Parts: sequence; structure tokens; C-alpha cells
Amino acid sequence: MYIPESIQANEDYQACITFHGHTCMGVTIGYQAAKLAMKLLGEMRAVDEELIVIVENDACCCDAIQVLTGCTFGKGNFFYRDHGKMAFTFGSRTSGQGVRLLLKPTIFQIPEREKVLAEKIGAHQATVAEKQEYQQIYEARGEEFFSGGPEAFFDVEHIEDMNLPPKAPRVPSLACYVCGEMVMQTKLTEVEGHLVCRGCLA
Amino acid sequence: MYIPESIQANEDYQACITFHGHTCMGVTIGYQAAKLAMKLLGEMRAVDEELIVIVENDACCCDAIQVLTGCTFGKGNFFYRDHGKMAFTFGSRTSGQGVRLLLKPTIFQIPEREKVLAEKIGAHQATVAEKQEYQQIYEARGEEFFSGGPEAFFDVEHIEDMNLPPKAPRVPSLACYVCGEMVMQTKLTEVEGHLVCRGCLA
Repeated sequence: MYIPESIQANEDYQACITFHGHTCMGVTIGYQAAKLAMKLLGEMRAVDEELIVIVENDACCCDAIQVLTGCTFGKGNFFYRDHGKMAFTFGSRTSGQGVRLLLKPTIFQIPEREKVLAEKIGAHQATVAEKQEYQQIYEARGEEFFSGGPEAFFDVEHIEDMNLPPKAPRVPSLACYVCGEMVMQTKLTEVEGHLVCRGCLA
Repeated sequence: MYIPESIQANEDYQACITFHGHTCMGVTIGYQAAKLAMKLLGEMRAVDEELIVIVENDACCCDAIQVLTGCTFGKGNFFYRDHGKMAFTFGSRTSGQGVRLLLKPTIFQIPEREKVLAEKIGAHQATVAEKQEYQQIYEARGEEFFSGGPEAFFDVEHIEDMNLPPKAPRVPSLACYVCGEMVMQTKLTEVEGHLVCRGCLA
């Protein structure tokens, strides 16, 4: 989908793009999700683990969510559920409230006329007028969708008294009996009286 | 460990701290790992999937690695192995070469005198002279360790013709028969002739 200049010009959008490495619709969906969730929860970016997020996919959108919410892979407040859904649950450790955002399927529904024109362009059979018409439809659809704000992108489910995941644990390390490398104690398995890491067990 | 000003003053170090949310030794280890790996592989930050990383922990260090290498959770070039080790494998899709960095256990070994003084300070039994001595030992150890550059932090294993993970797949979505939410086809399970998502199966 066309991403309007009014979105791309935002400094925090550009911070997401810098982190992700390139502009794409995926990262823009994450941007909209993070903006909406923080507004609904009345929260700022997490310095530590004040906010949590549960992402149900590992697509581009997750990068904007990391940048904007401060729920990052390395901080222990970013949880991945491998469900293959464009859904994101945000929770506040301050209020105990949460919100689950599910991307509306309409966001990727392309109007018939736009499809026909895109196919013609792809097959190098479009006239100049048809190319212009395509561009006009494509841009207008994007402008219209984005004009609804982040709210236009998601179905929202509010969660009262959210069952928040525990904070990131701090665990001392011991040497694996086989490879000698240091390993978090919780990831070692006892084999015939010796502690062995997952790499050596495999 | 004390993090010298000569590290903290770097613009790219500050970018890691901004992303992570606060300064800590964990993010500094990731910073050193990313710097060393990119130097050894002769690579720049990945715009797309030119570089990959396999992290063997989900600690703070992973955030600096995301920022500096462009191997991010949302881009499909960041792989997590839950082995509880301070180890990071970086691979280049251009050269096929890789490098595995394992944090030296010495990095967190605290000299006996520093330990004794820290305990005295913790118990509010230290004299002013002892507090000054502690600070001097603590800072000197940090300065000395960091003076060795990123090389001082890691044992390095070079990998020729690395078996690189595949690029991120793009998979269309279908509605789950139970909840109706859109799901990547590969994450759906057929139950009595209907496709069901992992959330509804659980």
C-alpha cells in the first residue's frame, strides 16, 4: 500500500526505518500498532520493563514495535508466540491493563480496478493514461486508509487485569561438562551426574 | 564492570543505549561483539538480509547486535537458539563466511580485593579511603579490559562456507475455522477437514 508523506515525515517513523534498514508496509503496520497501543494504555516508551508486548509473528512490524515501545528482544519484555497472526498484545506493569490489536484483513484487499491495472502494467500492456489511473487509485487508497489514523488498522480487544509474564530472570552460569562453555544454569541438563548444555545434547 | 567514557562517547554506542532504554554491561558486550564480527567479516550493517546472526541467549547484548548489524527480530535474519550462552554467530550471505564469538569467562571475574571492598561498602563499613580505593580498582579494571578492544572480550571461531539459514519466507494467510482470525498458512493445522490456528488448538 502507498505510505503517505504525512506518515513518512515523522521523526519516530524514520527512527523505525533506520532500525529496520528499509521502508516497507510491514514496519508501517508495526508503527501504527505501537502508536495506538501506547495511546490506549496511556504509556510512554519503556526504559526498563514497564511495558510488555506479545507478538504473534516475527515479521517486519515487530521492528517498529521494538523501537517505539522499548519492548525489545534483549530486554525481557518482548514475547514471541509463533502463531502466524498479525496480532500484538501490549500490557502495562503499572496499571495491569492490556490491549490486543488484530490487523483488519481489509488492509490488504485491493480493489478490482487497481488489480486489473497492476496486471496490465506488470505485462507491459498499460497505456500512459492507465499508468496514471493506477497511480491515482493506489495513492488515493493509501491516503484514505491512513487518514483514519492507527484506529483504522486494527480491531481492538481491551484486557482488564492482564496476567503479565514474569520479569526477565537473572541466572548464574556454569561450565558445560562436554564443551566447557559457560551456560545459564537453567539451560543445563544433568546426564550421568554431569551438567551438559543443549548444544552438546543435540 | 566500569564502562569507560571512550566507549560511551561513541555515537553508535549511544544509538544502542537509546534503543535498549538504559546503559548496562550487557548491551556493551553486544556492542563489542557486533563491532568485532563486522570487522572480521568485512561487512557493513545489513539493509536487508545480507548478514545473519544466531544468538544463543535473549539478554541485553542482543539489542546492541540488532542496532549495529541490522540483523533484527523483524527482518528474518536474526535467529534465536535458547542455549543460555553468551555466544553469537554472525554470517555473511555475500562471502558465505561466518564467525562465532564466545564471551571469555574472565570478563566477570572480580579480583579478591575489589570483592572485599565492595562487601564493606555494601555493609556501610568502608572508610572514605577504602571507598576511594574501590573506585580506583573498579575503574582501572574497566579501563584495562576495554583497552584491549572488542578482541579482548571474545574467543573467536572462524567458519568457512557457513551453512546459512534460509531467507524469511512470505506466506499467504487464511482464516482460522474457529476464531476467524487471519493466520499464515504454515501455522494452521487441519482438524476434521478444517484449518485451525495454534491459539484455538491450545
